[in-house]
Formats: sequence, C-alpha cells, structure tokens
Amino acid sequence: MGPRLKGKLWQESHQTLAVFRHVNKLTFCIMVLLTWLILLSASALAQTDPLPSWNEGRAKQAIVKFVHETTDQSSSNFVPPEERVAAFDQDGTTWVSHPMYTQVVFCLDRVPAVVKAKPELANVEPFKTVLSGDKAAIAKLTMPDLEKILMATLSGMTVDQFSTEVNRWIASARDPRWNRPYTELVYQPMIELMQYLRASGFKTYIVTGGGQDFVRAYSQRVYGIPPEQVVGTMGGTKFSYNSAGRPILTKEPKLLLNDDHAGKPEGIHLMIGRRPHAAFGNSVGDQQMLEYTGAGDGARLMMLVLHDDAQREYAYGPAQGLPDTKVGTFTQALYDEARSKGWIVISMKNDWKRIFDFEK
Amino acid sequence: MGPRLKGKLWQESHQTLAVFRHVNKLTFCIMVLLTWLILLSASALAQTDPLPSWNEGRAKQAIVKFVHETTDQSSSNFVPPEERVAAFDQDGTTWVSHPMYTQVVFCLDRVPAVVKAKPELANVEPFKTVLSGDKAAIAKLTMPDLEKILMATLSGMTVDQFSTEVNRWIASARDPRWNRPYTELVYQPMIELMQYLRASGFKTYIVTGGGQDFVRAYSQRVYGIPPEQVVGTMGGTKFSYNSAGRPILTKEPKLLLNDDHAGKPEGIHLMIGRRPHAAFGNSVGDQQMLEYTGAGDGARLMMLVLHDDAQREYAYGPAQGLPDTKVGTFTQALYDEARSKGWIVISMKNDWKRIFDFEK
Repeated sequence: MGPRLKGKLWQESHQTLAVFRHVNKLTFCIMVLLTWLILLSASALAQTDPLPSWNEGRAKQAIVKFVHETTDQSSSNFVPPEERVAAFDQDGTTWVSHPMYTQVVFCLDRVPAVVKAKPELANVEPFKTVLSGDKAAIAKLTMPDLEKILMATLSGMTVDQFSTEVNRWIASARDPRWNRPYTELVYQPMIELMQYLRASGFKTYIVTGGGQDFVRAYSQRVYGIPPEQVVGTMGGTKFSYNSAGRPILTKEPKLLLNDDHAGKPEGIHLMIGRRPHAAFGNSVGDQQMLEYTGAGDGARLMMLVLHDDAQREYAYGPAQGLPDTKVGTFTQALYDEARSKGWIVISMKNDWKRIFDFEK
Repeated sequence: MGPRLKGKLWQESHQTLAVFRHVNKLTFCIMVLLTWLILLSASALAQTDPLPSWNEGRAKQAIVKFVHETTDQSSSNFVPPEERVAAFDQDGTTWVSHPMYTQVVFCLDRVPAVVKAKPELANVEPFKTVLSGDKAAIAKLTMPDLEKILMATLSGMTVDQFSTEVNRWIASARDPRWNRPYTELVYQPMIELMQYLRASGFKTYIVTGGGQDFVRAYSQRVYGIPPEQVVGTMGGTKFSYNSAGRPILTKEPKLLLNDDHAGKPEGIHLMIGRRPHAAFGNSVGDQQMLEYTGAGDGARLMMLVLHDDAQREYAYGPAQGLPDTKVGTFTQALYDEARSKGWIVISMKNDWKRIFDFEK
C-alpha cells in the first residue's frame, strides 16, 4: 500500500471514527435513514437553477456549458478537481467600484488617524487637501498623490491591527447612493456564479488590483473565499519583536507586486502556481489575466462585466459608447478583443435579473 | 435562506446529482451495501496507529495530544477546520539536505546548458569552476558565487519550461550515497505526520528557503501538497507575448522574498494570511517561523528535527556537540530556545523507527 493510498484510507477512517465515537447502534440506524432522506432531497434540489439571478441567454448558457464540459468525466475537456481554478477580479466585477474604489475611500477615511500619529503631515500635500474635506479638491488628486496616501495609510501597523481596522471601518462605512455597507453592494449573480463553481469542485480566487490584506479581512464572510485564496496587490511585511519580546509582522511601505494588468497573471503564478480555467473581470486591468487564462488547453471561460445599467447600478467605460471614467475602464479595444477571442461580455442590464441581494 | 446556506445545499445537491446520473435502482442498492462495508472496514482501520514509523515517546505523544486538542469540539483549544494550518520546512525536515541542498545540485547540473545558451559565460567565474568539474573547488564556492549560479540557472525560461526541466532532472538525478532519486529520500515519519494532520482537517504547507517553483514541480507527487500550498523563496516573473502572440510568463532574475529566517513568517503571511497552528523545522532558518507560530493563542505545536543519526542518515549541527556544517545549522542556542519554549526536539536516532520508506 503506497503512502498516498494509506493517507486516503486514514482520512476516511479518521472521519468515520469521529462519527462513530459516542454513537450507538440505534442512533446509527437513524443516521442511515436521515442520510437517505438528505440524499433524496438534495437530489430533488439539484434540479433547480444554480443561477437564479441570471436571465436566460448567451452568458448563462456559456457558464453552464463550461461547468458541464469540465466536470463530466466522459468529456474530452474534463478537468481533474485539483486543477479547477477560477479567478475573479473584485472591483466592478464582484462589487460596486464606482465612482471611487472602496479601498480608496477607506484610505481617505484613515488620513486623520495617520496625521494624528504623525502631526508633521498636517501641512504636507496631499494630506492637507484630504484633511480639508473639500470634495472637489479631493476628487482632483493625482495618481502620485493617491499612491502617497495609500502608502501612508496601509503601512506602519501590525497585520493583525490592520485587519481589525478594516473590519471596524467596513462595519460602519456606508456607500452614499444606497446608504448601505459596501459589503452589501456585491453582485448577487456573481455570488451565485462563485457558489456554482465551488459546488462543481472549483477553487475560487479573488485576483484584485486592490490590497491583498484589505480584501482578506472580509473575503470569507462576503464571498466565502478564505484569505489564502485572495491574490491582490502585495506589500512587504517586516518580522520583528515588540517591547514584550513577542514576534510581530508590521506592514511596510514597500510594494512587492502590483496585481493589475500584467501583474495579474504574475500574481496568479506567484500565489497559485496554476493557470486558471475561468477568469472574470470588467476592465483593461483584467485583460492579461483573461489572455493568460485563455491561452491554456481545453475548455476555458473568460467573461467581462459591462456596466451598462445606469438605472440599477452605473453605466460607464467607453465600450459601446458609454461615458468614460477613471475607474475600471472597459475600452472599445477590450470589447473588440473579447469579441474576436470568444470572451463573453456580460451586460448587467440584459443578463442580470437582479443585481443586489437586497432587491427582493 | 442566506447565500452561504444556499451554496452549501447546492454543493451537496450537485455532488449527489453527479452520483445519481447513469445509476439505476439496483446499482444504487449495491452502492449502499458497499458504502456500509467501507464504513465498517474504515472504522476498524481507524484503531490502528497513524504514525507507525515513530517510536513511542515524547515527540509522538506531543503530536497525538495536539491533534486531539485541536480537533475535539469539546476541547477549549478546538480550532475550526478552516483555520488549521501546518507549516513544514523542507530541507533537513522532510528530506535529506546533506551534504548539499538538492536544489543547489540541480543548479550546478544546469550550468552547462546555461553556458551553451550564453557561451560568453564559459570563462567567467563562478561558471568556469563549475564547468571544470573540480569537486574540491566547487565545494569551496562562496555564497555570492552560489547566488550568481542560482540567478543564472533559475531564470530566463518560461515557468512551464522550468517545471518540465525540474521534473526531467528529478526523474534521473541520484543521491550519491543511496544511489536513489532525491524524491525517495523523504523522511517517512514526516510523510506520516503530514497525512495524519491532513486526515485531521489541517491544510499542510511546505514553507521552504528553497525556490518556490522548484518545490512546486514535485510537491503533489512527493508530499501530497498542491502547488498553491508551497511557500518558498520567490522570484519575479514577467508577462509578455511570444513570437506567435501567445501570452507567456518568464522567470526573472529578481528576488521578491527570501523565504528563510525572518522571511518565513513574512512568506507565510503573504501566501496564506493566517498564523499556522503547527510548524516543523530543523535549523536556525526556521527559528522565526516557530516563534511566530508559538506566539498564537491556544494549542500550538513546534518541532525541530535533530540530525543525530550518522548511521541511518547524518549527524550534524553544533547542538549537543554534533559536528558543524554549512547546511541546515541547528545551533546550541536554537536547542536552548526550544527547551525554554517547550518546542519538541525530534531525535532522528531515538524517535524514528525508520527513516525512509525503502527501509522495509
């Protein structure tokens, strides 16, 4: 018996033992009956729609076809369970990112605390502008300004303090349009898609240009995705000992990998070491991830969310003549690449029956 | 019904459906009977020893106690399954690393191929010395020399080419003492420990100072650990397109993280985002990983392999007066820290009944 087989048997036997402990024969008979009932009801449930928030159409059909092809053992495109990887961009793909990325809002909100700790920053730009509260001036901050703010607000604390800080903020902050926590502004159709893929044996990953530690703080609760399956923009940490001699990890203002554009396939290789079979995005920042995914053999699913629903969410990105913005740009060139490569463009307006879970 | 519960039901129903498809009633009855038999035999098997290559003693007891404490729901040290993380150093902890790290042997063996591609290196040190085949001179190469060799031999190809190259080498290379593939020189007691932890719901990770992509090439086959659970020294990659327009990832001579010493807890945070509950090492390079693991709440298991068995393997490291070497140093200071912090020192000589799977 090889070590792998032994391991498998051990796993089964251990699980079985845990069940058997404290269980007498009568209880066991009842359990067998219950198991039967669960199997029967689960079988009935399996006939229902895994994607109830999706309208019938090309996008939904493509998803179902991909899952059948990759999970049916008789299919030539069958993928062994351990190789089933699906990568989801976050901002604009799984939750609202307009008019400003949620993490940028978090960083701006953190500026007063940073200045309190380092008062000399109060009269230094861009911190001075942020402290002024002048929304028009804040909206005009340049990318180098924002980078200074990100570096200052996302470093200098331990990784545990940071996680606590993100969770505290995200529990109280509200999106101004819907007056709801940002974590309620996730797209219900994409949540269903994640669940459907996981139920089909896929490991689902967030692959975001946002901060890896930021998204990890809530990924399990919001997406059902554990921290080790979040690939994001990575900052360095520094191991040291605090005054009590306890080892700590402090977040450093040092960029290890910018997980956007070409950085997405690079981040995927670094963190996962496998090419995804499915990838979902909404902007030019996702282009290379979709290209990398599509360059693999067999069945691959590449999809882009088009924000074309001004009424229920937003309409932006120059593709199809929508208004251009700085956030999550879906260019006409990306649209054309999608068409030529068979990537599926998801129209929020036409493909999604409902957008948020709270729209009952 | 919340989205999480729905997802769970979906998962169950989907799996059930897959089973029911193509299965008629008679076959189903036979399957139920077979399931019964499997449950019964697994139950019997569960009475046997999960660590047969370990002698009874303090080390084995500590492992079994840790597993019971962290997996028994009535224990105050119970750990939810999703948080169960165990980190294993590789060189000297899960396989032989003496007298030279296996990956260094690989890199030295690759030098001729690198020089063939770049003939100008033939007369440049340290490549000239490696090409000379002078074993005494090669053994005297300095750390900066070795770094030049590592950078040159571990970069410049696509990640897929590299993985193919490692697998080709590892299938043919032999350790000179045992005349066996390096992958057969894994420690059977540590393989059993990994299997026992996985059977108890732990995710097992390799956390190595070796190259992440090097170890990933064989980790599933040798350790049952998938590539996404290998944390190692990380090099950068570069996304680009080859002459046919196909997207490729090329390994760059750029160090992102040296996953050794303080780099181990930093690498664990980067790749996993959780503090391990158990960590296993054998040298000063593992010190900070064990400290970081031990700084968490509840039950934690920290163990160090002491190479004190010159007959069956090797005896080295200045702890307990063993001879010093450059490879995997187990200092007396580390030994003293282990004693004072309650880390378990595994004596290969006394704690391991057998070392390799091939010793029947």
